[in-house]
Amino acid sequence: MAGTDNRGANDIDPHAPSIVLVGPQLGENIGASARAMLNCGLGDLRLVAPRDGWPSPQAEASASGARAVLDATRCFDDMAAAVADQQHVYVTTARPRDMDKRVVDPHVAAAEIRAAAQRGERSCVVFGRERTGLFNDEVVLAGTVITMPLNPGFASLNLAQAVLLIAYAWRTSGAEALDERTIPSGRALATNAEVVGLFEHLEGALDLTGFFKTDALRPVMVRNLRNLFQRAALSDQEVRSLHGVVTALSGLRKHQVPTPAPVDDEAS
Amino acid sequence: MAGTDNRGANDIDPHAPSIVLVGPQLGENIGASARAMLNCGLGDLRLVAPRDGWPSPQAEASASGARAVLDATRCFDDMAAAVADQQHVYVTTARPRDMDKRVVDPHVAAAEIRAAAQRGERSCVVFGRERTGLFNDEVVLAGTVITMPLNPGFASLNLAQAVLLIAYAWRTSGAEALDERTIPSGRALATNAEVVGLFEHLEGALDLTGFFKTDALRPVMVRNLRNLFQRAALSDQEVRSLHGVVTALSGLRKHQVPTPAPVDDEAS
Repeated sequence: MAGTDNRGANDIDPHAPSIVLVGPQLGENIGASARAMLNCGLGDLRLVAPRDGWPSPQAEASASGARAVLDATRCFDDMAAAVADQQHVYVTTARPRDMDKRVVDPHVAAAEIRAAAQRGERSCVVFGRERTGLFNDEVVLAGTVITMPLNPGFASLNLAQAVLLIAYAWRTSGAEALDERTIPSGRALATNAEVVGLFEHLEGALDLTGFFKTDALRPVMVRNLRNLFQRAALSDQEVRSLHGVVTALSGLRKHQVPTPAPVDDEAS
Repeated sequence: MAGTDNRGANDIDPHAPSIVLVGPQLGENIGASARAMLNCGLGDLRLVAPRDGWPSPQAEASASGARAVLDATRCFDDMAAAVADQQHVYVTTARPRDMDKRVVDPHVAAAEIRAAAQRGERSCVVFGRERTGLFNDEVVLAGTVITMPLNPGFASLNLAQAVLLIAYAWRTSGAEALDERTIPSGRALATNAEVVGLFEHLEGALDLTGFFKTDALRPVMVRNLRNLFQRAALSDQEVRSLHGVVTALSGLRKHQVPTPAPVDDEAS
């Protein structure tokens, strides 16, 4: 019965990464993913527009009693909403993308996620649709791509198998494996929603200038700009500074007089 | 068609461990195990008295094209026959046994298997029945027990998930973790002079807006902005795009009409 099976719930680790399934088609895969998560102590499952709705009888059947995960599962309309509260967004994809993104394997990602959690920063790992994966506009929301070092001639994993490899890599990871170079010191990383807000400010300002030339070129130009800033792993303060830069540069267009940047406390 | 799909076969490693499934009940689990094996470059699957016989239409359906494994799969009457040619026999079990056996985790087992293969010694990993596991008379045939460090309150893995964890542990063992942290291939990094040129363009544009507030604040604000862009490890193309952004946003100040970005070929 829903809500009455508490198996494994005591060992869910609040510092474990969230798992986001974008557009999952099969309830069986959702259930098997929930089972794999609970096997490894992960408790936060987020679904983006599951094809057959939610809750799902097929998911219940294949979760083998992972009620603690299913009962807490939340649905979102799009990936941006699902990852809005996260400081670190990882996407899994076996396919090379024409995007400049950091690429790590599950082992490195797991160590990074542990280290981030120790700093109070939340991480999620996003998995695409069973057949079509993630769209480019979704991949661009992530700071880092996780690739799995599989047989190059046969690299396609079942969705729940992919979730298991990530969850298990996290469970068996220790932060000591992490190369300290990659950890910015003392910075409060921006959430994904804050970063997206900056993107929208910049792109809106550029729209007024004709920078994007044509509607056809706009998507790829936007994607390239977003990837560039994603790579920088912006702090919340840097996001505010860049809002100030955009406002300062573009604001004068209307007023022809210097307008102070509205928010910029980086030197205070 | 049986035998005509050679996907992934070129990357089967003859030194990989054999996988032995004892008394598997569901063809689906056999097929999913074959898929997980081929994902990781394992090719030798052995079945002990599969409940529904062999070959299995359910296994074919769930193998997702792992024909190279299914076509080579052999059946045996009992576990002793299946492991007779092996120097090292590992069994997987989540349950403690009243037996005095060596116990290792998948990571250690994988390293041992690689080292043994270098000495010309064969290793196999044995998995029990979905519900009842291995009998004591079967466990006793093994030299070592593999246990997985899972959530103690929810440790039961699906059979194919267990095969995947072992296969992946083997695949990722002994080699340095894939770490493409540095720079994804194909990017032409900007020179330092190009990056500094961008900084000077941006800062000069900001000087005209009053963004820097006071001469005293300017150096630290400039330094923070430069650090942010340095972290992104800009390509030469991205430097050109950002010149275009600065020009587009600030150029309108003077002309009040859209000025095309002077250089931006990222979408060409």
